[in-house]
Amino acid sequence: MAELFELVEQAEIELKTKDSVSESVINEIRGLVNNNGFIGMAQINPIVGNIEYNAKKITKYIRFATKIGLEAVVFPELALMGYPIEDTIARHPIIVEENIKWLKGIAEITKDTAALVGFVEPRHNVKTGKLFYNSLAILKNGKIQGIVRKSLLPTYSEFNDYRYIEPSALTGVQKSETLGTGECIQDYSKLYNGYGISICEDCWNDSDFFERTLYKINPISELSKENPKLFINCSASPTRAKKEQLKHNMLSFISKKYKTPFLYVNQVGAIDNISFDGTSRVYNSEGKLIARAKSFEEQFLIVNPYKNIGKIYPLTKGLEKSLTEQKVFTLEYESDLERTYKTIIQGIRDYFNKCGFKRAVLGLSGGLDSTVCAVLLADAIGKENVFGVSMPSHITSKESKTDAETLANNLGINFVEAPIRAMIDTTTECLNNLFSNIEKKWGKYSDGNGGFTNSPNNNYPSFTPDNIQARSRAMFLWGISNEFASCIPIATSDKSELYMGYATINGDMSGGFAPIADVPKTKLFAFARWLNKNREEKNAIPESIILKKPGAELAIDPKTGKPLIAEDALMPYEFLDEIIWRIENKNESYNELLDAEFVFEKHNKISKEQKIEWLDKFYRRMSTALYKWSILPPSVIVEARSINKFDYHQPITSSKINYKGKNMMEIKSILQ
Amino acid sequence: MAELFELVEQAEIELKTKDSVSESVINEIRGLVNNNGFIGMAQINPIVGNIEYNAKKITKYIRFATKIGLEAVVFPELALMGYPIEDTIARHPIIVEENIKWLKGIAEITKDTAALVGFVEPRHNVKTGKLFYNSLAILKNGKIQGIVRKSLLPTYSEFNDYRYIEPSALTGVQKSETLGTGECIQDYSKLYNGYGISICEDCWNDSDFFERTLYKINPISELSKENPKLFINCSASPTRAKKEQLKHNMLSFISKKYKTPFLYVNQVGAIDNISFDGTSRVYNSEGKLIARAKSFEEQFLIVNPYKNIGKIYPLTKGLEKSLTEQKVFTLEYESDLERTYKTIIQGIRDYFNKCGFKRAVLGLSGGLDSTVCAVLLADAIGKENVFGVSMPSHITSKESKTDAETLANNLGINFVEAPIRAMIDTTTECLNNLFSNIEKKWGKYSDGNGGFTNSPNNNYPSFTPDNIQARSRAMFLWGISNEFASCIPIATSDKSELYMGYATINGDMSGGFAPIADVPKTKLFAFARWLNKNREEKNAIPESIILKKPGAELAIDPKTGKPLIAEDALMPYEFLDEIIWRIENKNESYNELLDAEFVFEKHNKISKEQKIEWLDKFYRRMSTALYKWSILPPSVIVEARSINKFDYHQPITSSKINYKGKNMMEIKSILQ
Repeated sequence: MAELFELVEQAEIELKTKDSVSESVINEIRGLVNNNGFIGMAQINPIVGNIEYNAKKITKYIRFATKIGLEAVVFPELALMGYPIEDTIARHPIIVEENIKWLKGIAEITKDTAALVGFVEPRHNVKTGKLFYNSLAILKNGKIQGIVRKSLLPTYSEFNDYRYIEPSALTGVQKSETLGTGECIQDYSKLYNGYGISICEDCWNDSDFFERTLYKINPISELSKENPKLFINCSASPTRAKKEQLKHNMLSFISKKYKTPFLYVNQVGAIDNISFDGTSRVYNSEGKLIARAKSFEEQFLIVNPYKNIGKIYPLTKGLEKSLTEQKVFTLEYESDLERTYKTIIQGIRDYFNKCGFKRAVLGLSGGLDSTVCAVLLADAIGKENVFGVSMPSHITSKESKTDAETLANNLGINFVEAPIRAMIDTTTECLNNLFSNIEKKWGKYSDGNGGFTNSPNNNYPSFTPDNIQARSRAMFLWGISNEFASCIPIATSDKSELYMGYATINGDMSGGFAPIADVPKTKLFAFARWLNKNREEKNAIPESIILKKPGAELAIDPKTGKPLIAEDALMPYEFLDEIIWRIENKNESYNELLDAEFVFEKHNKISKEQKIEWLDKFYRRMSTALYKWSILPPSVIVEARSINKFDYHQPITSSKINYKGKNMMEIKSILQ
Repeated sequence: MAELFELVEQAEIELKTKDSVSESVINEIRGLVNNNGFIGMAQINPIVGNIEYNAKKITKYIRFATKIGLEAVVFPELALMGYPIEDTIARHPIIVEENIKWLKGIAEITKDTAALVGFVEPRHNVKTGKLFYNSLAILKNGKIQGIVRKSLLPTYSEFNDYRYIEPSALTGVQKSETLGTGECIQDYSKLYNGYGISICEDCWNDSDFFERTLYKINPISELSKENPKLFINCSASPTRAKKEQLKHNMLSFISKKYKTPFLYVNQVGAIDNISFDGTSRVYNSEGKLIARAKSFEEQFLIVNPYKNIGKIYPLTKGLEKSLTEQKVFTLEYESDLERTYKTIIQGIRDYFNKCGFKRAVLGLSGGLDSTVCAVLLADAIGKENVFGVSMPSHITSKESKTDAETLANNLGINFVEAPIRAMIDTTTECLNNLFSNIEKKWGKYSDGNGGFTNSPNNNYPSFTPDNIQARSRAMFLWGISNEFASCIPIATSDKSELYMGYATINGDMSGGFAPIADVPKTKLFAFARWLNKNREEKNAIPESIILKKPGAELAIDPKTGKPLIAEDALMPYEFLDEIIWRIENKNESYNELLDAEFVFEKHNKISKEQKIEWLDKFYRRMSTALYKWSILPPSVIVEARSINKFDYHQPITSSKINYKGKNMMEIKSILQ
């Protein structure tokens, strides 16, 4: 059936470019499909809240599916609204009423191909519970035939369903007459045309698969009691590190367990910080993958789940690896780098497209962070739309300048040099005047007794000169953003440094978007090499950039007379990244970290005192970085866990948490 | 019994200053209490996650309560951990294990006075559900006597309980043996010593009181079946506009409905953006208020709910008003201004104290926003800890400079003038060079066809010069913050302007804290007058500041030759604030707003075209302000609804929402 899939690919190109497909192609496909149980999986990229845009896209695919004689066409979760819409619907319920009107409009154009379309449903008549359901309508022959409502509401990490959605009391198909009423009423069966239909999280609660489940009921098990011929799940499931393996194993497990094929349609595209990978797929009743759509691309894929006819598009490279390494930290990032690349590219592209931005400006320091950001931007929005600005100061080395320019040339992005010396001099002079005036009333340093003094009582260097440099650069970038239409500046901070608060407020951590805020430094090194190897233009990143030790080039190390190296100010990145990984993925405590053998320790002998020093520094710096996390620009969530404020929220005033804890004896003696 | 309450006040001062109370005072109180059913309400201000700090405070009050012979002492929700701890406990479960150890330590010091102490409880042995309960332990005679677990989990606005907490399957007291197991097992009764105990939201679901309830069960009704002698509710309930009236009416209603006294202990203090007012209180079985603690202060209040013996401390002024005006917009802010003041003062003070900051620096423009911020800071952290910096540019009027200095003198805060002319000149020169280099490759303006051109095709002025000024000022303030220990800069943006995105990124909207980000402009005018009248130093704010029309003084209006007035760039504040209020409080749509009669319209004739123009501008500007909301510094939530990102979250990429909607005819014709 290779011919069929080629024809559908061709049709999709026509649909995208001309909005309609030529009759000859339609007829050819129709002949092969032959009313024989084929289902369309419309893996679309919605714009959240832009109902008209989403509705037109949905309608286009329904028309096509109908013309080629499909049994049904399935859209992702909340396809009409986009997921997640968050608190918007509670504040502006009008958009929910709008999506109902559009849903009814779409229903009218349906014929004998059933369409499963997700939408936000108001709960008008009931006096208890949240205001909305997360629903899905079955549309056919001009009418709404039934409604499926989400029962399990993910409310953790990037998910907040329970903030605004009421869980459905029933699983399976409910009567269409209940639309908008808020009531759950079922007909004689949970199934529609033999389909056991569920929404996203509803299929993530199998207690035979998971060691620990979140919810008391399992909708799939409920549906299975009526022996569906096919499970259908409409999802909006974001990509995160290691998630593909988990999802694959789980869906394969479920289809095998219930001896029922499983069709899974996932949203694609990014909405703010969240990147959805698509990768819709079908497993047969033996748990075998028989169809899979592309990752990170819109696609209309057809499949015959009853006859095992489907096409498996290649998965993002490396992700086929098993789940076994899930709980072990490794510097072997290889298997996740293509996914990382596509996740971030999609994140940047959709943020720009959906907000209406076209161009980006970023500082090119010749360091790894800005380098990787530049490559990603060039690939995401086009090299002509990227301006790299080298903004050397008195500390910037000649190599850094050369490296930045070489990179820009290799990438073909625009490049300009704009020295910040004059800015630094003026700012420094102004500030010195100001400081000396303020010093008359205020001491600069803490005197250790709750007061302040102007006699330095420690050797900490002032960070003011460093920050003046970083902020002067941001001043330039935001100036460009103001002056040049549709252009935003890029914040280049990486995850490791954000954990340490090693980023300047209104400086390098400021921008309209932060592409690598969830990529740890050790992964960035591997990523840079991967980019050099896998992009069409090979080796765009000069080797010298990858080889040099990271450092912000904001200050001179008094010990070496050279620019300060970040690892000297912080700790070895390899060690730092393993702390982060262990906390995020295994929730290890201070003492567990102290007891663990780090990868770094396998090839570097370090004393326990050294390890304690680094751990103390980590917790101390992390505790005071919480404020910075709260003002970080939008970024792409990449790893299994992140510090993105819409994924993880810790109060800033919790900075005095004692992560080491105390033993019972100490506690008793304190309380006596 | 006035004597008793005076003695307790005296004892509390001793407790706070010396950590113990003199024997004579103890004995006097003990004599009056006489083992006669008195209960202590320990309205404490915890530091979130700082378990040792909270435990010591709890222990101190338990010891005191025991010494004076109270029947019980009641602490707020999650007293040992502080509420809300948010996702922190899931990432760092060690702190939950710590709070269990401290809880056990506290239990050991208890004697014959029962103590009700809130804590986070792990759910170790169960295979389903979230990892924690929001619990409360009854401690007495050295042991944990029972556990109460929260059933109703608020997950909306500033609340996110369901992100990390499992709802309890049972209401009332459960067996202490279940501690940490995750199991809910009850003994013969739901009551402990005749108390019907619940946690916060558990008492907010009475369907006779609310038109619409959120949850299916009502724990208070469950508890009432066993005829408790007293309801006890441990809360962490934030203050918001109009909430006091709602809370008072509800608690009075419940106690009357069940003919049972109701004792309510609320957390006080601010945690990041959320300010808890305390105002713990007791209603008798007729719904009459018989005791009320102070608002916005820690207090240990004793009460005898069985014998109607209690002291009613004055409520924050003006809040006694009824609920009837709840749904009407008014410019009469009087009844809410003392609450607004105390909410923000507490918000600033606790943020500074809990993070370890002592000093603040802010730009004084002579405008209303920075003026009100300066007053609030002086009152919250002490005038000697505030530095006001006047940073005039070429546009700044002489009056503005004079006003700023007069204000600083009146307040007694530190003051310095630091002209930004040199910064502006250097930045402008650098940027002009840079821009002319960039112009060689990039057009400045959109050409209307997806490309860019250097020929201006509209009359929009460039905002670059305005923003250079605002950012130069922020550069100064952040420089001071870097150089002077324990000092953070203040972001002075107000709510009306944040809605309109009328604030400069890395400029006036940047800072370590944003005190008035949830105060609309019209309220700020009333607030300024209130401050002049009600602070000890009268009329600190020069009348000229209140009288002048707000404007950022960043640009000259070409029409008048004078600095641009904000209302000319936006719309009348009175109109703007009513739009905001109607959307936030009544969830009105574009068309409902168009049809409504605004207060502004009652005394200003405006055409429908004018109204449409303003509404269009409102939605357009609001849609592009979403990014700014996402990077706003921590601020204090004041109003009933806000744009604080931890209270309201709307995706930035939802900026293309059509708030006007379309009618069914239009929709059908688009989809045909």
